[in-house]
Amino acid sequence: MDERVREHAEVLVDWSARIEAGDDVVVAVSEGSHELAVAVGEALGDRGANYVAVYDSDEIERAYLRAHDGDFDDDPEFELALYEAADTVLRLGRGRNTAARADVSGEIRQAHRQSRTGIREARMDTDWVSTVHPTRSLAQQAGMSLAAYEAFVYDAVLRDWESLAAEMAQMKTVLDDASEVRIESGDQTIQMRVDGRTAVNSAASVAYDSHNLPSGEVFTAPYATDGEITFDVPMTIYDQQVRDATLVFEDGEVVDFTAAQGEDAIAQVVETDDGARRLGELGIGMNRGIDRVTDNILFDEKMGDTVHLALGRAYDACLPEGESGNESATHSDLIVDMSEDSRLVVDGEVIQRNGRFRWEEGFERT
Amino acid sequence: MDERVREHAEVLVDWSARIEAGDDVVVAVSEGSHELAVAVGEALGDRGANYVAVYDSDEIERAYLRAHDGDFDDDPEFELALYEAADTVLRLGRGRNTAARADVSGEIRQAHRQSRTGIREARMDTDWVSTVHPTRSLAQQAGMSLAAYEAFVYDAVLRDWESLAAEMAQMKTVLDDASEVRIESGDQTIQMRVDGRTAVNSAASVAYDSHNLPSGEVFTAPYATDGEITFDVPMTIYDQQVRDATLVFEDGEVVDFTAAQGEDAIAQVVETDDGARRLGELGIGMNRGIDRVTDNILFDEKMGDTVHLALGRAYDACLPEGESGNESATHSDLIVDMSEDSRLVVDGEVIQRNGRFRWEEGFERT
Repeated sequence: MDERVREHAEVLVDWSARIEAGDDVVVAVSEGSHELAVAVGEALGDRGANYVAVYDSDEIERAYLRAHDGDFDDDPEFELALYEAADTVLRLGRGRNTAARADVSGEIRQAHRQSRTGIREARMDTDWVSTVHPTRSLAQQAGMSLAAYEAFVYDAVLRDWESLAAEMAQMKTVLDDASEVRIESGDQTIQMRVDGRTAVNSAASVAYDSHNLPSGEVFTAPYATDGEITFDVPMTIYDQQVRDATLVFEDGEVVDFTAAQGEDAIAQVVETDDGARRLGELGIGMNRGIDRVTDNILFDEKMGDTVHLALGRAYDACLPEGESGNESATHSDLIVDMSEDSRLVVDGEVIQRNGRFRWEEGFERT
Repeated sequence: MDERVREHAEVLVDWSARIEAGDDVVVAVSEGSHELAVAVGEALGDRGANYVAVYDSDEIERAYLRAHDGDFDDDPEFELALYEAADTVLRLGRGRNTAARADVSGEIRQAHRQSRTGIREARMDTDWVSTVHPTRSLAQQAGMSLAAYEAFVYDAVLRDWESLAAEMAQMKTVLDDASEVRIESGDQTIQMRVDGRTAVNSAASVAYDSHNLPSGEVFTAPYATDGEITFDVPMTIYDQQVRDATLVFEDGEVVDFTAAQGEDAIAQVVETDDGARRLGELGIGMNRGIDRVTDNILFDEKMGDTVHLALGRAYDACLPEGESGNESATHSDLIVDMSEDSRLVVDGEVIQRNGRFRWEEGFERT
């Protein structure tokens, strides 16, 4: 086994999920992540945790969904019981074909997603962590060879997370103290309120309320959004390529949208439910170890010199204790490139301009 | 997809497991059975059932068990909850290497098995069915090409089960009415009591209390075993090859054993717990569609012209309502070739001689 796979498993189990003896851990293994799952199994055995491996197969799900009439039972008890009793869920992405479910109708996906709302909530109530194993399908999606893609992934994953967490604390302080955030890109402006909300220093560990490995972003839960913005970083949503999606917000809700490509995917997102028309997340990418777009949200949204906004569900960690934020069956991220002709403005003060933060060398306020 | 895979899934879901809309089905997918799992997913979707796919990976389990100190938690709650709430468990065997766990110590295996007794019971309280997908590893174990092995498996699986069930009903009647069964092979004799027990017509369907696909045996739960017998059909137990194991019983318990090969595996079985020294099953193979030994218990024990005895756990279906039979953490089958120099004698009457039943042409009493 490639030693980097074993190191990845150890970062996941120890730094990210903080697994201890006796923990009940669901390991969700995708079709392409068997090798990482073996390394995770070894780490879990060594730490004295218990595991159930769930097979997260796109191809089985596709066959099931296409054959089903669409009248799904709500939150089947056996699946709910598994996640309700679990301490941790480790999701190891991903499959052998990123388009494996491309021929499942949007209507069926949506009905299935909605019928599993309680299961999703139960999963998110655990100390869940999502990561990816560098598969050929992800390398292909990124337009990279497998060897180059492996190097890319392990550069992003096998980091000094403690030191990155310290760097990101500065941005958390800015957002925690803020009332209004404005994103300016070209001649577009979008603004949102963040007062009363708590930013998360997403340092790839449940100890930081951070659930993705790799990570490297600071995010919060905005509201009362107004304005217009074009998401110029290409990405894949519901297996469809989306390019230059533009959203127009009024009084916190999407009132219009267009896209150069994949407008149907945006429509699917927005029409999921009422909460899907509102933002659930504002995230600032701060991981400069991730230096290229690979059409994988887990990496792309963490890139330095980007910000992202998500339609749908807000993370409870950003809300005051006991309060719930925007609710939705979806959480769909969209990314803006901030490296040129752009500013991030917090309560009237420029925090980032053309990709430089105000505490960095080369920062220019105007 | 090979049309036989789809037909296999349909026999499994409809004839064997009797799946209906709304059933909660755990599909346990081994490393080699992805294709069958996709077909099963399609059938479950069509029938309107719910599924959770569990990844039953030998390689993950090996890594976990080898890294663990052996002090396992008993029946972790999250796994127990899944099986307790499930209606059906479909186990799709098997892996890519039948020796994948060969380097896990017997002590660790045994400790792990014992710690999962409650989970095993919960799984067996569902309408469970075990089947196999014809993998390269199973073909290799059988000494066959993949194509020939596929033909072998589908010949055994894609049968007219209704008509086979009718044939087997005769043997069930003989055993249900019986007090004592004697197996004579060469100069060895072993006898056991079966009065008060009910035989199962194992027709590969939960409707017949039969949980393997393929099947084709009639079995009951014997007790008070005495005598000596050599199991001359070769097989693999705990990943070890076992040849010509001889067991000696006194007053229902194993008092001595030897084997030409794999004696250590027999020792592991016998030392599991007290119940492992007693028989849990007497089975009569009646599936003449299975006409060769392939070192796979699911097939070998169903072969016509064989009988098998299992050390360990008895199936509740053979016991009077509410009563439990022999209890054990193991259930390990051993097979005797009855085709030559052998007799099956029930209450003094010869039922089978040299492989012919008394209701068949060519049967000779002496």
